[in-house]
Amino acid sequence: MEIKYDYTSVMASAVGSEHGLTEAELSEALESYSGVPRKLEELRASGGADYMNLPYDGALTESISGLVDAKRGRFENFIVVGIGGSSLGSRAVFEALSHPYHNLLPAKERGGPRMFFPDNVDPELLAGLTDTLDPAKTVINVITKSGSTAETMSNFLVLAHWLMCGPDASPADHIVATTDPEKGALRKMAREEGFQTFPVPPGVGGRFSVLSAVGLVSSAFAGIDVNRLLTGAAAMDKRIRESKPATNPALVAAIIHTQLDRKKGKRMAVFMPYAQCLRATADWFRQLWAESLGKRLSTTGDVVNTGQTPIAALGTTDQHSQIQLYAQGPNDKLITFVEVKKFRSEVRMHELYESDATSYLWGRSLGELMLDELAGTRIALTDAKRPNATIIMPVVNEETLGQLLFMLQVQTSYAGMIYGVNPYDQPGVEAGKVAAYALMGRAGFEEKLAQIRRKSAAPRLEV
Amino acid sequence: MEIKYDYTSVMASAVGSEHGLTEAELSEALESYSGVPRKLEELRASGGADYMNLPYDGALTESISGLVDAKRGRFENFIVVGIGGSSLGSRAVFEALSHPYHNLLPAKERGGPRMFFPDNVDPELLAGLTDTLDPAKTVINVITKSGSTAETMSNFLVLAHWLMCGPDASPADHIVATTDPEKGALRKMAREEGFQTFPVPPGVGGRFSVLSAVGLVSSAFAGIDVNRLLTGAAAMDKRIRESKPATNPALVAAIIHTQLDRKKGKRMAVFMPYAQCLRATADWFRQLWAESLGKRLSTTGDVVNTGQTPIAALGTTDQHSQIQLYAQGPNDKLITFVEVKKFRSEVRMHELYESDATSYLWGRSLGELMLDELAGTRIALTDAKRPNATIIMPVVNEETLGQLLFMLQVQTSYAGMIYGVNPYDQPGVEAGKVAAYALMGRAGFEEKLAQIRRKSAAPRLEV
Repeated sequence: MEIKYDYTSVMASAVGSEHGLTEAELSEALESYSGVPRKLEELRASGGADYMNLPYDGALTESISGLVDAKRGRFENFIVVGIGGSSLGSRAVFEALSHPYHNLLPAKERGGPRMFFPDNVDPELLAGLTDTLDPAKTVINVITKSGSTAETMSNFLVLAHWLMCGPDASPADHIVATTDPEKGALRKMAREEGFQTFPVPPGVGGRFSVLSAVGLVSSAFAGIDVNRLLTGAAAMDKRIRESKPATNPALVAAIIHTQLDRKKGKRMAVFMPYAQCLRATADWFRQLWAESLGKRLSTTGDVVNTGQTPIAALGTTDQHSQIQLYAQGPNDKLITFVEVKKFRSEVRMHELYESDATSYLWGRSLGELMLDELAGTRIALTDAKRPNATIIMPVVNEETLGQLLFMLQVQTSYAGMIYGVNPYDQPGVEAGKVAAYALMGRAGFEEKLAQIRRKSAAPRLEV
Repeated sequence: MEIKYDYTSVMASAVGSEHGLTEAELSEALESYSGVPRKLEELRASGGADYMNLPYDGALTESISGLVDAKRGRFENFIVVGIGGSSLGSRAVFEALSHPYHNLLPAKERGGPRMFFPDNVDPELLAGLTDTLDPAKTVINVITKSGSTAETMSNFLVLAHWLMCGPDASPADHIVATTDPEKGALRKMAREEGFQTFPVPPGVGGRFSVLSAVGLVSSAFAGIDVNRLLTGAAAMDKRIRESKPATNPALVAAIIHTQLDRKKGKRMAVFMPYAQCLRATADWFRQLWAESLGKRLSTTGDVVNTGQTPIAALGTTDQHSQIQLYAQGPNDKLITFVEVKKFRSEVRMHELYESDATSYLWGRSLGELMLDELAGTRIALTDAKRPNATIIMPVVNEETLGQLLFMLQVQTSYAGMIYGVNPYDQPGVEAGKVAAYALMGRAGFEEKLAQIRRKSAAPRLEV
């Protein structure tokens, strides 16, 4: 089962040439960027895009399954302690492939632990979590590639102490650390304390790590078939490698995004699945697109300030929140729908309460309604000359999700090359970190603190 | 306890005159729009802004408390069946003022039912819900002002049938309907079937209804003091009425948003609370701002295609997802932080695992860390000339949340006046609805269906 990328409604033939690509513009761009896939393969061969090799790490999935066999039945709760790329991928896979009310199911039906993703240093959130769960029945998976992410280490200190206050004075059995294979503070702690560990491959950045141990350990605990997830990703890899530019879905999508941004003023990229289970996938994509492409400098050192702003939306929910703006506001967005052809369960509307607000629904299913609503929205936006594309998933399962995640990552790599920026770094978060370290009083940041104090002496404007 | 609006870092003195407002620009705008608050009061007096009177409806809160007394202890689950403005406000209040893991707490600690907001017609979501809950112990609050919203009525048909399959053959005791006081299909059903009902005031639109029965019934069931919520809103109303333009926080914020959009190219408005509990409030604001201001036509009938795109973000989480883009991408955003000075619970970091990644955190609290991270991000964005404002909440409680919700609604009304659009309609969602009705085969839409069929006969471009 293959996912597809339908770009009919981004073309000038559908939305006019002011907002859509003409056939000439598309073929010209396909010609100009026809070398991009080969360049990415060269980068991959030289070790510069290691995320592309993650689908083939059978040794990893075997060792994960060993851990899961040993621990899954013994624990009632599993907490992912991570932030950004160390949490969003895990959550995306979990939400896409699990029961929508997983944590409320009885243990027997769940078949695995309840899953928690407290990806914020919010004291109410953490206190709420430790008040609610039993430390004796909880395993935590602390994930940070560097081993020193402030938010992750903070929550880890809180939760590790809480585990120690439980009946197990030594919490090593409750802690799984996913971090750099050699370096960093967390790796050192893990060695000293005897935590079970998994590696974050050195050449894989956080937002490209969903198919590494970062995303797979929690997924396996949640009962997801991680081998099939990787099989799906490998199938997309093969399809991309064997395709010509015009039939490479990641390249076509990257070209459409970048050209609509540059030539048609589509400064925002809305990612809008019509499936509740893909809401967290939209959040994952939002990080991938924003951090990879939002850059001050090009690879040649010019100030470019690039980056389309990604927006996570959800159908049908946001038809009642955002579609008014998307249809009638400034025409500055490219919208990508995700259409799921068949849902894993179906519900019919019963013949109740006869009225003109209900009778036309009788006998129809919610899945049909979802598809009709997506089609209706697509038609209306296209008629209003708002360019839109649709990713079509036959069904959401491990294989199609693996394809989707892999495709979106390659699309992002391609887009980086087209924009001429490095999609694998994030120099823009450093300044905020340094200022926060200074304010926290971390040693070595005294000068920054003095500078902040001087600047912030001026009175604030407040009302 | 008053909330404050700090706009120091939207000024040219902080971020330069290319991206921030000069003092002259601000005073000029305050002068130009000094009549806006009076115009809104006139509209209110003539019945055109009835949402502003919601804080004073004591009879409503009394009748809600009667219902809650009669039913709250008897039910284990409460489902809000609504979408858009009929769900987002309820959820915002619930998440802001409840335990972060409310639904996992034992009944005794919860003190009320578990709360569910399935605001989508997703069959997996609905089947998941009915598989998990016991209909005998469930009350549903179906909310639609018109009484005919397709998504809401669909989910209602599914859930009402499910209730009937439970031990109570007649589900009237389990159903509370919130709808127009006189008109519409749901009102008629409620009369015939004997559902308990609450009114949506005719002059109050969905996205301005959080302080009506739409938002208050579920909040009261969740154990929230709705009278204090209204008291907070009334305090903001009073403060706004008694203030001069320059000290009216809603006007200052409306001017800053609209002027930064029009004069400084800030086409996006990011709303970024540094508090997990306010995430749903950001989603609520996102609807309010988008649907109210994203308009094709001005009130004088000119094609304007206005509307700043609102973006919901969350600190510290999105520092690891969006800040790279906000700091280094195109300078096209106004960011509004929400700073919470004191959290309702606090957690300290323990002296564990000595290392340079942990020791500087020892003894600090998560609440302090949150404030330092916000300050660090604000400093870094300001240094990068990215305009930003901060709403300061001393603490999140009923009173401060009431102030915040009321202020943001008035700010939206003011912004509509400044843009010259009608913030209370949503003509842009009609076309999508009509197309969806046609596809669903609803009577009366046959011609639209034939038109869609003709148009969609062309082959799709797919890869």
